[in-house]
Amino acid sequence: MLKQVSIVLIETSHPGNIGAAARAMMNMGLEKLVLVRPHKFPSATATARASGAVKVLAEARVCDTLDEALQDTRLVLGASARSRSIAWPECDPENASQKISAVNGEAAILFGREHSGLNNEELDRCHQLLKIPTNPTFSSLNVASAVQVMAYEMRCLWLKMQQNEANEAEQNGQVAQSEQHIPASSELMDGFYQHLEQTLIDVDYLDPEKPRRLMRRLHRLFNRAAPSDTEINILRGILTAAQKQSK
Amino acid sequence: MLKQVSIVLIETSHPGNIGAAARAMMNMGLEKLVLVRPHKFPSATATARASGAVKVLAEARVCDTLDEALQDTRLVLGASARSRSIAWPECDPENASQKISAVNGEAAILFGREHSGLNNEELDRCHQLLKIPTNPTFSSLNVASAVQVMAYEMRCLWLKMQQNEANEAEQNGQVAQSEQHIPASSELMDGFYQHLEQTLIDVDYLDPEKPRRLMRRLHRLFNRAAPSDTEINILRGILTAAQKQSK
Repeated sequence: MLKQVSIVLIETSHPGNIGAAARAMMNMGLEKLVLVRPHKFPSATATARASGAVKVLAEARVCDTLDEALQDTRLVLGASARSRSIAWPECDPENASQKISAVNGEAAILFGREHSGLNNEELDRCHQLLKIPTNPTFSSLNVASAVQVMAYEMRCLWLKMQQNEANEAEQNGQVAQSEQHIPASSELMDGFYQHLEQTLIDVDYLDPEKPRRLMRRLHRLFNRAAPSDTEINILRGILTAAQKQSK
Repeated sequence: MLKQVSIVLIETSHPGNIGAAARAMMNMGLEKLVLVRPHKFPSATATARASGAVKVLAEARVCDTLDEALQDTRLVLGASARSRSIAWPECDPENASQKISAVNGEAAILFGREHSGLNNEELDRCHQLLKIPTNPTFSSLNVASAVQVMAYEMRCLWLKMQQNEANEAEQNGQVAQSEQHIPASSELMDGFYQHLEQTLIDVDYLDPEKPRRLMRRLHRLFNRAAPSDTEINILRGILTAAQKQSK
């Protein structure tokens, strides 16, 4: 579980925060750091603040786009301090850790800019928002502190799982691997959303001039369902059938 | 509970860590910072890293001795990364929070020097050691990160306690009507599924002779999303638009 989570820092301004995040990750057993357009990296300040977590920094992936950062990712969570006007599905760190452990594939947690967090396009990529409980009158966590809290919760859950496994192994025999629900990757979901948007235009439901609000609502709805690969194929089959009628 | 805990930093070398600890505390609703022989305080670096948590810094008590810092304290916990040769009683952050909430008086958590932690005389003052679970091969947390994790756990417990109180109050008071995600009723869902089935027939996607298996899959998918009334209206709007094209 800890090896399947990427911490994605977007347009981080202060290299010190990158270093502190790397240290927090390694302290908790996380390894995959992804930096989208960092203002300055590599940096001596980052290395100093990493305080020995050089492996995480050295292996960090630097990306130009979020698409690149989220390749092969099946679950995307976005850390958010603010409450949004449209109610996105939210989870707390404990809950988020459970979702990550259940995903059976790569997961990513996005952490936004120091002063402005994640923008709407980035939020659209998130299946859920991660909300760390804070003092409402002073709610903005340092980005590395947010990484620390989330990494800590993941480690706590991981330790619990290890403990449970040890207990089960003791009772001997293997646990049957059941046929599980595996959510589709971000790429598949993106393809679906593009297809959906085009179909809604084709059937005259969506005004191509102002698609944003409706599409955001639909993102929210389908991200909540977290369709599997098969389900995405069915949904796209339906969209294609509807498009044929509109010719 | 949050007001009764002092965070005691002993001989902190880097003023940045003092500022970051103050921010972490205020983020989680803690107020009492005690500094025992800080190398440099006040400091512009501390103020910058506190990022607005100036109240905590301004009200910090600076002490020459640990005795002075621990006046009137009923429970003392000491944060420790190392396992000690003498087995001190240990607790994790969750457990530590419970002890603090139970103490019914002032509590303090000691955080030692960046490089050497707490010394034996300081450990002698502790009722228990606080051990934050970490990666055994890279276990030394930044001092402000350790404060962050512990403050977060205390807030989580405090929120649970508030919630329990609220639940109790609700049982003879009123139920708060919050603007939440409320799933649509089964009638609305039934209407939607009938509409969906008819549309799939109209656009030639579904064979009306054997609709069962596909419809069961779609039930499972949309039930998982648990659409709200508004979302059902949007989905039915889309179905109607698709049906119009198929005439």
